[in-house]
Amino acid sequence: MGSIVVDVMLKPEILDPQGQAVAGALPRLGFDGFTDVRQGKRFVLTVDGDVTDEHLAAAREAAEKLLSNPVIEDVVAVHVLDEQAAAAEGSGEAEDGEQ
Amino acid sequence: MGSIVVDVMLKPEILDPQGQAVAGALPRLGFDGFTDVRQGKRFVLTVDGDVTDEHLAAAREAAEKLLSNPVIEDVVAVHVLDEQAAAAEGSGEAEDGEQ
Repeated sequence: MGSIVVDVMLKPEILDPQGQAVAGALPRLGFDGFTDVRQGKRFVLTVDGDVTDEHLAAAREAAEKLLSNPVIEDVVAVHVLDEQAAAAEGSGEAEDGEQ
Repeated sequence: MGSIVVDVMLKPEILDPQGQAVAGALPRLGFDGFTDVRQGKRFVLTVDGDVTDEHLAAAREAAEKLLSNPVIEDVVAVHVLDEQAAAAEGSGEAEDGEQ
């Protein structure tokens, strides 16, 4: 069972009030050093069996047509979720590797 | 200028109506082959200069304390956004690499 991750973020020129709220709350909780926060969406699409190029192509098309609003959002990534990360996700463990 | 990505998803046992709505819409738009969809949040935290281990540690703590609700959500990933991906994100191009 494979999974595809689609990351969608507001375009840089679009105001992000949710991100601003987080950016304002961080220093109040003692987290300094962050200059900006943007909040976006992350979709995990599950497929039967392994992820094929057809699945990825369908996910890319769905990302543009259904998962994002191209007027205000960008699809910033469409990639296969590796199995190790998926296992961690299922068990609730954080994955800390660099992308 | 570095960025840290925090990915937050609903726990597997928590109902995800947004994901279900997407999963229901996909076949209506001709996208078959996806068996499940889950929708989560993606935060991009920007820091001045390069991302240090202190920044990453602060981001991990903020992810647990502010960016997620530990009762219903898991922090599935905290990682440095690589510069190439960040540039693509800024220019609105999709990044299609595997994770």
